[in-house]
Amino acid sequence: MQTSILPLQLNERNYFFLPLLYIVWSDTLLGERERQVFTDFIGRISWLSPSEKQNLLERIAPNNPPQRDEIEQWHQLIHATTSTLGQLDRLSLLGVALVKEQTDLRLTPEEEALIQADLEKLEQELEIIGESAIYLFKREHPTITTTQQTSVDFDVKELTALLDGDQASIIKEVKNLLQRPEFDYVDPGDLKAYRTAVLSWCKLVADAGFGSIAYPKEYGGKGDMEAYFSVMETLSFHDLSMVIKFGVQFGLWGMSILSLGTESHHAKYLPKIGTLELPGCFAMTETNHGSNVKGIETTATYQATEKTFVIHTPHALARKEYIGNAAMHGKMATVFAKLVLNEKDYGVCAFVVPLRDEEGNTLPGITITDCGRKMGLNGVDNGVIAFDHVVIPKENMLNRFSDVTDDGTFETPIASDNKRFFTMLGTLVGGRIGIPRSALSACKSGLSIAIRYGDKRRQFGPEGGEEVPILNYRMHQRRLIPHLAKTYAGHFAMRYMTKRFMNRQEEEMQEIEALAAGLKAAITWNTTDLLQECREACGGKGYLSENRIDALKNDTDVYTTFEGDNTVLMQLVAKTRLGAYRAQFENMNLVTIFNYVAARTKTSLTEKNPLIIRNIDEEHLLDPAFHLSAFEYREKDLVDSAAKRIKRLIDEGMDPFDAFNVCQHHLVAVGKAYIDRIMLEQFVLAVEAGKGASFHRVLKHLCDLYALSVLEENKGWYLEQGYLEGVKTKAIRKMVNQLCWEIRKDAVPLVLAFDIPDTCLSAPIAFI
Amino acid sequence: MQTSILPLQLNERNYFFLPLLYIVWSDTLLGERERQVFTDFIGRISWLSPSEKQNLLERIAPNNPPQRDEIEQWHQLIHATTSTLGQLDRLSLLGVALVKEQTDLRLTPEEEALIQADLEKLEQELEIIGESAIYLFKREHPTITTTQQTSVDFDVKELTALLDGDQASIIKEVKNLLQRPEFDYVDPGDLKAYRTAVLSWCKLVADAGFGSIAYPKEYGGKGDMEAYFSVMETLSFHDLSMVIKFGVQFGLWGMSILSLGTESHHAKYLPKIGTLELPGCFAMTETNHGSNVKGIETTATYQATEKTFVIHTPHALARKEYIGNAAMHGKMATVFAKLVLNEKDYGVCAFVVPLRDEEGNTLPGITITDCGRKMGLNGVDNGVIAFDHVVIPKENMLNRFSDVTDDGTFETPIASDNKRFFTMLGTLVGGRIGIPRSALSACKSGLSIAIRYGDKRRQFGPEGGEEVPILNYRMHQRRLIPHLAKTYAGHFAMRYMTKRFMNRQEEEMQEIEALAAGLKAAITWNTTDLLQECREACGGKGYLSENRIDALKNDTDVYTTFEGDNTVLMQLVAKTRLGAYRAQFENMNLVTIFNYVAARTKTSLTEKNPLIIRNIDEEHLLDPAFHLSAFEYREKDLVDSAAKRIKRLIDEGMDPFDAFNVCQHHLVAVGKAYIDRIMLEQFVLAVEAGKGASFHRVLKHLCDLYALSVLEENKGWYLEQGYLEGVKTKAIRKMVNQLCWEIRKDAVPLVLAFDIPDTCLSAPIAFI
Repeated sequence: MQTSILPLQLNERNYFFLPLLYIVWSDTLLGERERQVFTDFIGRISWLSPSEKQNLLERIAPNNPPQRDEIEQWHQLIHATTSTLGQLDRLSLLGVALVKEQTDLRLTPEEEALIQADLEKLEQELEIIGESAIYLFKREHPTITTTQQTSVDFDVKELTALLDGDQASIIKEVKNLLQRPEFDYVDPGDLKAYRTAVLSWCKLVADAGFGSIAYPKEYGGKGDMEAYFSVMETLSFHDLSMVIKFGVQFGLWGMSILSLGTESHHAKYLPKIGTLELPGCFAMTETNHGSNVKGIETTATYQATEKTFVIHTPHALARKEYIGNAAMHGKMATVFAKLVLNEKDYGVCAFVVPLRDEEGNTLPGITITDCGRKMGLNGVDNGVIAFDHVVIPKENMLNRFSDVTDDGTFETPIASDNKRFFTMLGTLVGGRIGIPRSALSACKSGLSIAIRYGDKRRQFGPEGGEEVPILNYRMHQRRLIPHLAKTYAGHFAMRYMTKRFMNRQEEEMQEIEALAAGLKAAITWNTTDLLQECREACGGKGYLSENRIDALKNDTDVYTTFEGDNTVLMQLVAKTRLGAYRAQFENMNLVTIFNYVAARTKTSLTEKNPLIIRNIDEEHLLDPAFHLSAFEYREKDLVDSAAKRIKRLIDEGMDPFDAFNVCQHHLVAVGKAYIDRIMLEQFVLAVEAGKGASFHRVLKHLCDLYALSVLEENKGWYLEQGYLEGVKTKAIRKMVNQLCWEIRKDAVPLVLAFDIPDTCLSAPIAFI
Repeated sequence: MQTSILPLQLNERNYFFLPLLYIVWSDTLLGERERQVFTDFIGRISWLSPSEKQNLLERIAPNNPPQRDEIEQWHQLIHATTSTLGQLDRLSLLGVALVKEQTDLRLTPEEEALIQADLEKLEQELEIIGESAIYLFKREHPTITTTQQTSVDFDVKELTALLDGDQASIIKEVKNLLQRPEFDYVDPGDLKAYRTAVLSWCKLVADAGFGSIAYPKEYGGKGDMEAYFSVMETLSFHDLSMVIKFGVQFGLWGMSILSLGTESHHAKYLPKIGTLELPGCFAMTETNHGSNVKGIETTATYQATEKTFVIHTPHALARKEYIGNAAMHGKMATVFAKLVLNEKDYGVCAFVVPLRDEEGNTLPGITITDCGRKMGLNGVDNGVIAFDHVVIPKENMLNRFSDVTDDGTFETPIASDNKRFFTMLGTLVGGRIGIPRSALSACKSGLSIAIRYGDKRRQFGPEGGEEVPILNYRMHQRRLIPHLAKTYAGHFAMRYMTKRFMNRQEEEMQEIEALAAGLKAAITWNTTDLLQECREACGGKGYLSENRIDALKNDTDVYTTFEGDNTVLMQLVAKTRLGAYRAQFENMNLVTIFNYVAARTKTSLTEKNPLIIRNIDEEHLLDPAFHLSAFEYREKDLVDSAAKRIKRLIDEGMDPFDAFNVCQHHLVAVGKAYIDRIMLEQFVLAVEAGKGASFHRVLKHLCDLYALSVLEENKGWYLEQGYLEGVKTKAIRKMVNQLCWEIRKDAVPLVLAFDIPDTCLSAPIAFI
């Protein structure tokens, strides 16, 4: 017997109980019930003498706890045993081993078997799971969770090349520019300083030729709209106020001149807009009319005698609100107003209205109020503009879609006011493409920060082992890795969207507008969710502005609102899918001709195959054909049921306006299902095209994860429809967990493939 | 025949087609297919002459569109007809009426019947839904959606009295204070100015006696902890930086002295803390250790010769981080550090360490760095503190749970290091109660702003009718009204939580800690979601800082992180529910004794009753007994399955640490289900107690909506388990829509019942 254990006030035979005693005392888990079980047990056993029993009872008495040093000695003693004997999975085995190894007691095999059996019974009666109890005594403790780590087994540059595609060189140019020291981030606290910095950044971007890149060559540009989107997307790795100011100036202001004006406007304004010599605004939204643009109340009244228009704000709530570039820098604006000829309203048209003189003073009749501090984008000088009978020359009417003769006669190639208005809006669809592409860059930044931090940050760990990177925890993986998959999905979908837009034909316009609106809504909503997860996943560090998740979240928050409120957009998308429209995407009230698609789609709905609804083979679960058919089924069934439901309500005598309102929730689901299907299709195509590439395995994993996590999000719907059974949705959940676990080791290289310049990413926690 | 229609270039008999022509041309819906159908139809009919047919064919030729003025004349003509004849539900009826009323043609009954029948056929072939087409011609257009509006049919003050309960007078006092002009909001841009304003607000709050209210009377307080929570909750209608600074000073700093110190500390510090004469910090978190507090590395080494402790930061990542009050105002701090006696580690203890002298200069050995700008709470001066061998006298050890004798011997009433540490943390549980109560106030502010704005803001409307308040739209209701129900649910749950805490017994501590942690996590997560919805629901206005949703969202965002990361907390809650713990709530690694609850809960699980799983009677759907049993079933089943799953994994040889990691997602679901059940129970009790009150009906509706929307959120799970069938989850969705619709008219009075002072609410959009 070793001397070290002498002062333990425990009879030698009671050393069998040492592991048990340690556990119940060190963690004070000995409740009334357990003490009773223990006491009864002591009474029953045959292999302790009355005095030994008395000693043991004393050691479990509530009023006689061991001292701190005593507990520590027990622990050392037990530790010494396990380290000798290695793997033991029950406290009873450990107790017997301890006695045999560290006391002078010698047991016969029969005696040992009896004691062992009794101790096991006690363990059971106390409801102890031996393996988990033994856990506390382990010293070296490598677990599966501990050992998971980043490993790069594909060519990151190859994946970057896929993502950048034929835009690689312009992307590279923009990144080079952004890495210049002039682009150091500034504190957003001082509005004026921040806005000034943002203007100077935009000037640098313009100086590099990126502002005018989409404009025709004859006006200083390169006629490359696709490059414009790539510039906006790449700039979005940096400050997003700069991106929005860039978009206002070169996109909204410049493109309104290009799309709504005619040659004289192009020649007069575009060259100066592209260089930022002429900062301007896009003044459409009014306080009382944001989503419902058709309802704007600003008027443009023609005066034939003077050949001028009078631009006027009839009341305070008809002022132009949230107008970017207005509060400080804008010198002119494209103003949307109702054209009035001979006191008759000819609908919304666009006019170029000067706001400030060369010195920056507002012109007579113009009143501009600063929108003040916002949730984000504080580097953009949004303002409220009021016009008090502001006179502009006739040639300032942007007259591509409608014009006024000198004597005041209205002329237009599009007779229908509705059609003309929505055709005009349709030319501005490019804005809807820039926003989700900018949002995706913010997603990529957020994920890069959160995933790189999660890969290094350690917290908690197995008893006695080192702490574990938080990205090894399943919940952490679940928060971030499906979003990584969604971001890749969004990337491929927006590349597809852009190509469709670049090659658009007149007859595709309605589909393209629906695609752009739906992708804008889906991706910007997802951005809000994703950045919220990133913030929380980075804990306190995620709350510090230096780590930029703050700015990414707050700057992109309004992306769900501007360029069309997401909820409104999703309803418009849905109406398109129901066939309620033909050519006029944004017409909220147009429910006139209702091509009853339900009757047509019904027959094409995939039959619910009883073999499919409960097939949980891994091969099937990871089969893109299964994913695609499940996504298509959801889309078609939702379209079908929405169409039928609206028709039934109208048939029953409900006003169509009410019927559409009753089904709003349903319609938004239609829009989402459509976009989900588009995104999956494009992701699957990208994976197929990547066959043979080093990244093919991981891209396939990501695509599977995208598909299965969308199915999981919608499992309630699939179960309700009987398209999936519970056994399968459970298998899908398990597979999502499994894929997150597998992709974890690729997560860092997957964000490195975004190739975000360090100076842009900037967050210290991404570089620990 | 009226002269006005003469220039229409349309034969008289073709006026039958005018409504149809108007629709296809005004909205350009005449595609190739429709033109073919139309042409075929013209060929077939017997009642037009060849020249009339020729005239009609010309009017649908693609190269011959009508002029704008012509279309407008058609519209006027059609309009005149409908206004005479009133309700007509098909274009064919309208066409016939128009001809009879506005031309000289006279038809025999047979002729009319034939034409009517033919036109109907054409309408069908073109797939036009007549009712929706007619819609475009309606002038006066009252719809159900248009007419919904706020009506107050209960006593709002009576509901406020229920919400405030026995805390009404202290709540009133705090509101009176907040309405003083000194509490005008400040711009958060200038950190120094903002922090100075927040300090001065806290001083005013302290001067009113609210800071010390929880402290014992002998130290200047009122010994009223419940009032302390009410103060914090009410202050949270105002600036949340002030609330957190208040919580740091009087809660964390003061309560750490009260809970961890002994009489001499109380006498020495509490009077000065309560008046804010002695601003202080609570320095627990370190850069490397946030959630895993047990791992902190700051040391407190005893020097027996000097009777002093040396407080030391061993490396930069062991600095105290995010410490409120540290960057500018804190003069002292409760510092958590590992006690070292004779080079041996005795675990984490707490010490009072002076940081600054009277003039505000940091003391020797103390280095404080400003955390800088944060996502929110910028009025709180968070800092990073490093200690370089800072010497403090022995009496600065907060010695309630452990002490050191003069000669350096460790003394403690709690022998187990684990137990002592977690008991110490347990005394600080009050912080976990203050946070969700503050969060609920932010929810109430956000909902008040968004719902009051939604009630007034109009956008879109039926054709020819006025625009509709956006709160009348179903999607808008779905975004806000279930959150209103959840906020009421949270209110009642936190009132229950507070009462449990106030009346706590030693043996309930583990349950109370689990309740507090779970409610903190559930409510703060919900706050993040809710304020995000409010932001989006208010569109661009919601993005402007003047409307405060910005600050509410960003200030509360870190509530999901501090006072315990929500994901970690939910796992601890779940482990408690699995019986994995007894007395030490926060011990992440304690998996030792696993009281296998599954065996016990199994028998008590509600049987799946085939009559219940598809019962969609309204009475049943609105029956609290159904709600409660469904919530209980989910909780018990998740506990049962998690317990079995973890046991199985460990039985199969998995390391317990890994097993718990594999089940993390499952464990978080257990925690949520537990809290959902608690919240429903308390809401149901509140509704029952409100029988006879004027608000009883609306409160019952809200409670039903709370229950059903939680069931809807979890419908995937219920369907997977076979507890609900698809027919029932669909009925639940419909009922959620219905309840949102019904509660809409009560929504404004329901937020008015929160009785938030106008000066606190402040957002201009809440007052339009």
